[in-house]
Amino acid sequence: MATIGVDLGGTKVLAAVVEGGAVQASRKVATPGSGVAAVVDAIVEAVESIGGAAAVDAVGIGAPGVVDVASGTVVRAPNLPGFEHPVPLGTLVGERLGGLPVVVDNDVNAATLAEHRLGAGRGASDLLAAFVGTGVGGGLVLDGALRRGGNGLAGELGHVVVHEGGRRCGCGQRGHLEAYAGRAAMEAEARARHAAGAATALVERAGAKRMKSGVWAEAVAVGDAVALALLDDAVEALGAALASAAHLVDLELVVVGGGLAEKLGESFVGRIEQAARSRLFVPTPLRVVPAELGDDAGVCGAALLPAERGAGRVS
Amino acid sequence: MATIGVDLGGTKVLAAVVEGGAVQASRKVATPGSGVAAVVDAIVEAVESIGGAAAVDAVGIGAPGVVDVASGTVVRAPNLPGFEHPVPLGTLVGERLGGLPVVVDNDVNAATLAEHRLGAGRGASDLLAAFVGTGVGGGLVLDGALRRGGNGLAGELGHVVVHEGGRRCGCGQRGHLEAYAGRAAMEAEARARHAAGAATALVERAGAKRMKSGVWAEAVAVGDAVALALLDDAVEALGAALASAAHLVDLELVVVGGGLAEKLGESFVGRIEQAARSRLFVPTPLRVVPAELGDDAGVCGAALLPAERGAGRVS
Repeated sequence: MATIGVDLGGTKVLAAVVEGGAVQASRKVATPGSGVAAVVDAIVEAVESIGGAAAVDAVGIGAPGVVDVASGTVVRAPNLPGFEHPVPLGTLVGERLGGLPVVVDNDVNAATLAEHRLGAGRGASDLLAAFVGTGVGGGLVLDGALRRGGNGLAGELGHVVVHEGGRRCGCGQRGHLEAYAGRAAMEAEARARHAAGAATALVERAGAKRMKSGVWAEAVAVGDAVALALLDDAVEALGAALASAAHLVDLELVVVGGGLAEKLGESFVGRIEQAARSRLFVPTPLRVVPAELGDDAGVCGAALLPAERGAGRVS
Repeated sequence: MATIGVDLGGTKVLAAVVEGGAVQASRKVATPGSGVAAVVDAIVEAVESIGGAAAVDAVGIGAPGVVDVASGTVVRAPNLPGFEHPVPLGTLVGERLGGLPVVVDNDVNAATLAEHRLGAGRGASDLLAAFVGTGVGGGLVLDGALRRGGNGLAGELGHVVVHEGGRRCGCGQRGHLEAYAGRAAMEAEARARHAAGAATALVERAGAKRMKSGVWAEAVAVGDAVALALLDDAVEALGAALASAAHLVDLELVVVGGGLAEKLGESFVGRIEQAARSRLFVPTPLRVVPAELGDDAGVCGAALLPAERGAGRVS
């Protein structure tokens, strides 16, 4: 039977009926900025508009933050207004949907599950997914199952240390991968270099606005020195983090997605593979490949959550 | 029933009858330098001298190198003469012991298993063991089971990248943990600083001989600046690698053993815990504690290998 997946983001809520790994119907609404009750309303409205409890036997929600999967609680989601404190999202949504089982997990875990079951990671026993966008998210599949860990921390690739004592990460610590390969950190570094006198197409094109992935791709296309240098740093840092992961858990496959990776394309992913392999202490058949599902990874992965957790109506 | 564990090292072969986690009898012989046949003879002789096939229902061997556990083959063990190429050690020893099941694994995996089942990691669901000696070895237990990985690479903590582009590791790559926290690399760095004019008790005490762990402990005791600086680097590098591991797989417990850690004592391990915790992007109850089994970890862990693999006579 079908499942509804909900990709709960900071700006939009995307709900989709997913059956056999394919989106059958979907609905997108803006994420309300007025607190938890409004967000729950928006999720319920989106789910009901595509069939609701009558159409499916379970709902999965991917949320942008720390999630306690066992209780369906969003522990902390700084990008969702009202979610600075724990919110029992699964219970709140389930009650409104007539007791339908609702499984909640981190959005990156959901996307990782999607790439493993339906995307570039199909058939792999072990998989690390890296999503390179504003930040660097990650998810880990070991022996075919998503690894969460006791603190829900597993797969937090963005905070792997690559340069002990190096650049300041958004989390406050130094030298984490995200400080080198997250677009927000890269933008800050580019603006600092521009302010220090370096000419760069990045600032010329973005102006005062956010330096989107497309701007980076354009700057690379014109051979912009600052963009190329920062992307070199990002590739080397990603290579270091992936080599560390390969040494710690032994990986055969890394899937790289996210806005920046999509805009920069296969050559970016190929360079990351090379950077990772060149840091291994013994050669292994480690492969680094582009993600396949793009924006659909969120809802498709969310729809996979109930089965992964063994939830759902007995049919 | 009892099992015999064999700790096959570069200088000695230690065999022990282990029952209920305790060593009942043991035998130590020098590791022959004349090739595979002599090493097999030495193992068989040691095993038979403590009861052999009559006393136990299986033998476990921990070997210092890359091991294919499924076939019992030592793929590469640079510190064992004759083991530069794959050696089917399990088969060779088993044939000589009347078909007794023989399970072979990496010696660090064996020691990790021992600390998990009998030592400082008892009861932990997940565990990373770090052995800080000449190099830095590591082993990983996830959900109660030793993780090996498809290439036998899991738990290779020594080659986690901590300083992208940093000090050269013994493996040839740059910035790996072992280049900062392995005693051989630390000795090379101390001698380089001495040659460049820095006075240090490390070289004064060691002279031309190997700079053993005891020499480091003595130098620390007299406040030697070079020793303290290099140990600071080692602690920070270990903290970075353990934080990376905590972010990748989510850990509750790290056990630190090995010659250098034993000589430097609990304060060294406490500093590593602090260094690891201070690099986490969210606080977790991560604990870093000293290993408990010391030199017995090798044989006791080797003796646990057959049960871990489900091998042994049907009794």
